[in-house]
Amino acid sequence: MKRKHMASITDALRQCGLKDGMTLSFHHHLRNGDHVVNMTMDAVAALGIKDITVACSSLFPVHEHLIGHIRSGVITGLDTDYMSGPLAKAVTDGILPRPVMFRSHGGRPRAIGQGSLKIDIAVVAAPAVDGMGNITGTEGPSACGSLGYVIPDTQHATKVIAITDHVVEGGLHRVSIPHDVVDHVVVVDSIGDPVGIVSGSISLTRDPVALAIARNAQAVIRASGLLRDGFCYQTGAGGASLAASIFLREDMRAMKLHGGFLLGGITKYMVEMLEEGLFDNIFDVQCFDLDSVRSIARNPRHVEISADTYANPGRKGNCVDYLDAVLLGATEIDLNFNVNVTTDSNGKIIGGSGGHNDAAAGANLTIIVAPLVRARLPIVVEKCTTLTTPGSTVDVLVTERGIAVNPARKELADRLCDAQLPVCGIEDLHGQAVRMTGKPRPHEHGDDIVGIVEYRDGNIVDHIYATK
Amino acid sequence: MKRKHMASITDALRQCGLKDGMTLSFHHHLRNGDHVVNMTMDAVAALGIKDITVACSSLFPVHEHLIGHIRSGVITGLDTDYMSGPLAKAVTDGILPRPVMFRSHGGRPRAIGQGSLKIDIAVVAAPAVDGMGNITGTEGPSACGSLGYVIPDTQHATKVIAITDHVVEGGLHRVSIPHDVVDHVVVVDSIGDPVGIVSGSISLTRDPVALAIARNAQAVIRASGLLRDGFCYQTGAGGASLAASIFLREDMRAMKLHGGFLLGGITKYMVEMLEEGLFDNIFDVQCFDLDSVRSIARNPRHVEISADTYANPGRKGNCVDYLDAVLLGATEIDLNFNVNVTTDSNGKIIGGSGGHNDAAAGANLTIIVAPLVRARLPIVVEKCTTLTTPGSTVDVLVTERGIAVNPARKELADRLCDAQLPVCGIEDLHGQAVRMTGKPRPHEHGDDIVGIVEYRDGNIVDHIYATK
Repeated sequence: MKRKHMASITDALRQCGLKDGMTLSFHHHLRNGDHVVNMTMDAVAALGIKDITVACSSLFPVHEHLIGHIRSGVITGLDTDYMSGPLAKAVTDGILPRPVMFRSHGGRPRAIGQGSLKIDIAVVAAPAVDGMGNITGTEGPSACGSLGYVIPDTQHATKVIAITDHVVEGGLHRVSIPHDVVDHVVVVDSIGDPVGIVSGSISLTRDPVALAIARNAQAVIRASGLLRDGFCYQTGAGGASLAASIFLREDMRAMKLHGGFLLGGITKYMVEMLEEGLFDNIFDVQCFDLDSVRSIARNPRHVEISADTYANPGRKGNCVDYLDAVLLGATEIDLNFNVNVTTDSNGKIIGGSGGHNDAAAGANLTIIVAPLVRARLPIVVEKCTTLTTPGSTVDVLVTERGIAVNPARKELADRLCDAQLPVCGIEDLHGQAVRMTGKPRPHEHGDDIVGIVEYRDGNIVDHIYATK
Repeated sequence: MKRKHMASITDALRQCGLKDGMTLSFHHHLRNGDHVVNMTMDAVAALGIKDITVACSSLFPVHEHLIGHIRSGVITGLDTDYMSGPLAKAVTDGILPRPVMFRSHGGRPRAIGQGSLKIDIAVVAAPAVDGMGNITGTEGPSACGSLGYVIPDTQHATKVIAITDHVVEGGLHRVSIPHDVVDHVVVVDSIGDPVGIVSGSISLTRDPVALAIARNAQAVIRASGLLRDGFCYQTGAGGASLAASIFLREDMRAMKLHGGFLLGGITKYMVEMLEEGLFDNIFDVQCFDLDSVRSIARNPRHVEISADTYANPGRKGNCVDYLDAVLLGATEIDLNFNVNVTTDSNGKIIGGSGGHNDAAAGANLTIIVAPLVRARLPIVVEKCTTLTTPGSTVDVLVTERGIAVNPARKELADRLCDAQLPVCGIEDLHGQAVRMTGKPRPHEHGDDIVGIVEYRDGNIVDHIYATK
């Protein structure tokens, strides 16, 4: 029997037949605490390999380290669902010879499954591995809970390397990724910094604007008629979104409702609702805090799901399609309800879809929560700088100063008006914002394309240009 | 969003584009209590469809019902790992226009993954399904525990239908198969007869021959030097195999050992060893009794695995490769240690590899347990009537009258002799057997091929001929 343990990342890469031009994939469950992308690319560079595409489900400030490898030609392409920090800035400045490919969390596994994103070597940041090469995210010093985003990579990549700092002598309690998809295991001192991996606790906002938005958002859900037994819900970890969960919980208790599933990046507020019996299940592609890591390790109703199950539109169903409501943020939202969370209004890359356009497309009720103005810039704009999520999939914008309903959703607008919510036209919100900030100067970009924005279904919907 | 629930199996088959010549796959977790294969093929017949290949991981006496569909041309091919009962007899008699393809439990998912067994429609006998189409084997009136053998089918088939008698209103506790691989869900009155699905309890044999074999088998394991911390073990549900587990448990307690995993079809004796802390994990492709169904539903160390993870030799590792020891039965074992569990000595189909040749190939120590004589026929023969498991993968034969070691395993023979076990040549056992039974008449078969035996790696290693 082939023993999988390799002495070093270098050995494992050699065994995988690493060569120039390959695509290496990574995942982002260790978020800004991730050591694995950087240390692997250091090993690639030391081997003298060039022209690598790094396909990582998200990239964070910690990945600033990759800039050196881009400069030296080791990395020539990036493929990601989200990027922020110095690496994103460098990419906007035009450092990469090829444009970065932006996908969504559902579009990425679709591209992997269909072969348009072909992975030569998938590298798993593995919080715990047993002697056979089974992997779990729920144990070890770098425990992060779900490993959902990397599961499709391990099923389709030619080779799979697990990098771990915790070898379980006995068997695993839970298996995230079975050993039969793993070629090699490498043990290193540390795969991540726990401080950057999960938040010890995410605390609720006291910002009155965020609280006002959260109250309005939950009022929209209540008025929509969708809040009934079986209600399925996703929200993010932003201030208004988290606060809205609290208001949702209060409503569900008062209405004696029993929901279906909670979805998405998971926080303790969702875990508490599961444990209280307000929902049947959590379907979890990523844990955001220690409470959710602990929950997925012991509660069988807290189910780890792959990115395929979460949001791949090429499958026979995905969890986002069953959402009754989702709360999502926006950097910009325009008069056609198109949303940008990929760049700022100056065209600088500051994020990406993640699951944004997936959840928006799937949910019955897609609510964008955003303040009217942020950093002296209007959030409601005439036209988005970059298109992340098409307006046709957005139902309502909730701000602290009013609620705008997509004109295509007349019935929803009527319900909100009947509930005496402060409904207005999105043009009114735009006007209010511009009166507060002044008309922003139009964004002027250079000619070089630094990013390609692929919608979840594989269509290219926008390009990102180098700063002028 | 597409609703998956269909009013009838007929509707679901139509939606899947059923047509002449297709391959429909099924699985055998409901064993001799299965209703799903028969009712599905009735629906296929009622639609006037012909020339179907039924690829079912195992077929039991209950599937006698299919004989009519073979006679009428609805079914023209079978692809299975094991078959017994009237259908097996009819196939031996030459009822099928095309030979049945015999595979192993690991060879089947290899063939599915590589595309040599192409499945048009996979039909899942689903003990419980939720509103989205997630499936679990652990709940409902026909709960059978693991659904491991059908997982590869659901990942590769063009279409997947789940047939269930238990729709869970709330969410599932455990998900065996996620909804994103399921096209349609059909609710029927009953998918199976619990009496035939799992044994309420499997009781230990009092047969002195079986107990003598079991004692010898455990003595071989003890003497082999493999019984140490981390020991991984598979055994079947036959009398000698189950009894050997009891002796293994006694040895492990006495030696204060802590094992790795238990594998295979699972019984309460394995569950008890897990719960006692003698092993870290159970890796389960199939539950054999109610105790194991209850265990897999609540114990996270009792892990459901797919047939890929269990034994697919085309993967990057499989559980059988990590076995220290396996106990397997035999209908015949010949002087080269080749084993037949596919036909009897008259060439009649009475079984098939199941996981036999997979576990034999993987384990460090493959022990065949068999009485010297069964039904007045010798078990040790000059040459197997049909080859299921090559002698090169068999280490030792344990009978009630002596232990024969494969000559290629000289070191093992020395260990057993040192332990003063009754080691002899396999020729001696053959001689003893023949002296008891008389020399059996050589099997004479007809010319028509009714079965093809594929080894787990895809090589054709034998043929089965119609009775003369």
